[in-house]
Order: sequence, then C-alpha cells, then structure tokens
Amino acid sequence: MYEGVVQDLIDELGRLPGVGPKSAQRIAFHILQAEPADVRRLVHALAEVKEKVRFCSVCGNVAQEEQCRVCADPRRDPSVICVVEESKDVVAVERTREFRGRYHVLGGAISPIEGVGPDDLRIRELLSRLADGSVTELILATDPNLEGEATATYLARLVSAMGLKVTRLASGLPVGGDLEYADEVTLGRAFEGRRTLDV
Amino acid sequence: MYEGVVQDLIDELGRLPGVGPKSAQRIAFHILQAEPADVRRLVHALAEVKEKVRFCSVCGNVAQEEQCRVCADPRRDPSVICVVEESKDVVAVERTREFRGRYHVLGGAISPIEGVGPDDLRIRELLSRLADGSVTELILATDPNLEGEATATYLARLVSAMGLKVTRLASGLPVGGDLEYADEVTLGRAFEGRRTLDV
Repeated sequence: MYEGVVQDLIDELGRLPGVGPKSAQRIAFHILQAEPADVRRLVHALAEVKEKVRFCSVCGNVAQEEQCRVCADPRRDPSVICVVEESKDVVAVERTREFRGRYHVLGGAISPIEGVGPDDLRIRELLSRLADGSVTELILATDPNLEGEATATYLARLVSAMGLKVTRLASGLPVGGDLEYADEVTLGRAFEGRRTLDV
Repeated sequence: MYEGVVQDLIDELGRLPGVGPKSAQRIAFHILQAEPADVRRLVHALAEVKEKVRFCSVCGNVAQEEQCRVCADPRRDPSVICVVEESKDVVAVERTREFRGRYHVLGGAISPIEGVGPDDLRIRELLSRLADGSVTELILATDPNLEGEATATYLARLVSAMGLKVTRLASGLPVGGDLEYADEVTLGRAFEGRRTLDV
C-alpha cells in the first residue's frame, strides 16, 4: 500500500513485540516526520545494544563488561543467590532496594508447551555456582505462574541434598490493591500465608 | 537501572508514539535476544526511510520519486481532488478502491489548541492546483472530528467563489457496527443523512 521503503519500515516495526499494524504505521509516520538527529539516535541505540551488550559470565544477566554490575560489585553478598527468569526481573528486584545478594538469570522457565526443558535454561551454571558450598540461601524468584512454579519446584528438588536454605517469594494480595478484585488463586494464597499481627 | 546502552535504547524507544516504558523495555529485550540480521534489517529500514522518502511536489503525499505514485499515474482522474490531513489517510482511501482521482495532503488540520493555523497547512499549494480551472470536484476528506470539520468548513469557504463542486464524506453509522453502541453525535448524523430506500 505504501511506497516501498515506508512499507518496509512498517513491516519491520510490526515484528516487534506488542506492536500491531496500526502502531507500526503510527511509529513509521512519526519517524518520517521526526528530526533526522532523533532517528540517528534511535538507530545508534539499536546498533550499540547489539554490539556492546553481552551476558554476564557468572549470572547470565545483561552486561557491558565480562561481568554484570551486580556480580562486579564487591559489596554484594555472595552467599545469597536470587534466581530469576530474565534480566528484567533483576531490574524489578533491584528497584525494591531490599536485596543485597547476587542473582542468577535462568533465561526463561520450564515450559513443555513452548518446548523449554531444564537443559535450555542456565541450570548447570547455577549448580556449579553452588558447588563450593559458599552459598547459604537460594531465593527462587521465578514468576508466580504455572511455568515459574514448576521451575521453582524443579530447582528446589534438584538442590535439596545440598543443605542450603531454599526460599520462594511470598504470594498474596498486591499492596495498594483491592481485595474484591483479587483473583481466587491469589486470595487463596493470601489466606494460606496469613500472618499473626503483633499488637 | 539497566546497563548504559540498554537504558539508552529503552529511552529512545520510549519516545516513539504509543510506546510506554513497559513496552519500551519489552522491545529492548526482544532486540537484545533477536538475531543480529533481524536488527540490521530494522536499522536499515529506519535509515532508508529517512534517506529516501520525500514528499510529492504536487500533492504532499509521501513519495520516493519527485511525484508520488498517485500523481505519477496518468490513469488517475486529475479533475477530482480528495483533500486529506495525512499520508496515512491516502492509504485508507486507496484501500477502498472507490476513488480514482488525485489527492492533496494538507499535513494536518486547523487546531488553535495545538497552534496549527491555515498557514501551517499546504493550503496555498491546494489553491494553486485549483487555479487553472481543470479541477471540477473537491472532496474534503479531513477527519470527522472538531479540527477536521473546522478545516473542511474553512476550505469550503475559501474555494466557494471558484465554482467547483465541494463535497464532504458522509457521516453515519459504521458498517458492521451496532446501533446501540453508536455515540449520540454519530447517530444524530445518521438520522440527518437518512436516505429513501428504493424498493
């Protein structure tokens, strides 16, 4: 429908996650009318990411050096490892400023439907980090959904003989949420995990 | 929060229309994990659009040559001009395969709120296309909203002395829509424009 190069751009943008044909068209026209310098910055950022970003040799998080910022930081406690599915989960946990340990990024979760088995995740790398016995707690912070739970259960069993503390993040009502809008599974979990109030 | 170049990309993506912080992050991670060849194609498409696309010297539509495909097509009727706000409106009309005339792309609509006046649109260019009297009908296909209506009214007055037929696209119920979900203005317009059924 469009002149060749415009259609090419719409097609390429439409391949990005969450960008439908209408958004692709909208973005393409934005690009057409944008300042050349702005588009150059975007192109540069895209190229840089592919060129400079690699994955941390220790934990698998995105990194610009051989190790990511967390693994390279000597102030982070190496005796606690928080296992997450993706690098974006590292960012989510970092935002809480609650956690001062290290991470391990699995690169996904076990999902028979999508054909992802344990061997497709960075589980062997995790086991070798645990081998010397210096890690005392493993926090399984995979997503609170079917795949994440399955992955957590799998890992918990795998390391059960190693004698370390294995924990899972609490499930319950989101803070600031509305009880009446909570789904029944979440509400059920919130009941299960109820705590005594010290008053 | 992210390593420098990843954050740069998220920032740049977040400047695109309709891309919020969450989508920007999602797209950035997609890029990180995508095949380098796929990202090169996207980068190429972005650069090409800025390099090769210009605006038709006649109608203002996007073009790869001096004239756009419609203006360069001798089979298109030059006596009817359909005035639209943007190039994407040309594509929308072309999709109907109903219209065999030419276009004129204004580059927007009159909007005092956004500080867009008649001088910011390609109205002078439109008047010079009408000057030799060869155009017999002007179809005002600006958007059916406040700004589009104002622009259509402005143009209709401006050319009223030129003795050409000036039309506006019909307003009414969308085909395939549900009467009960139509807003009252649309439904009112549909009543106003009701037609006698020939049975």
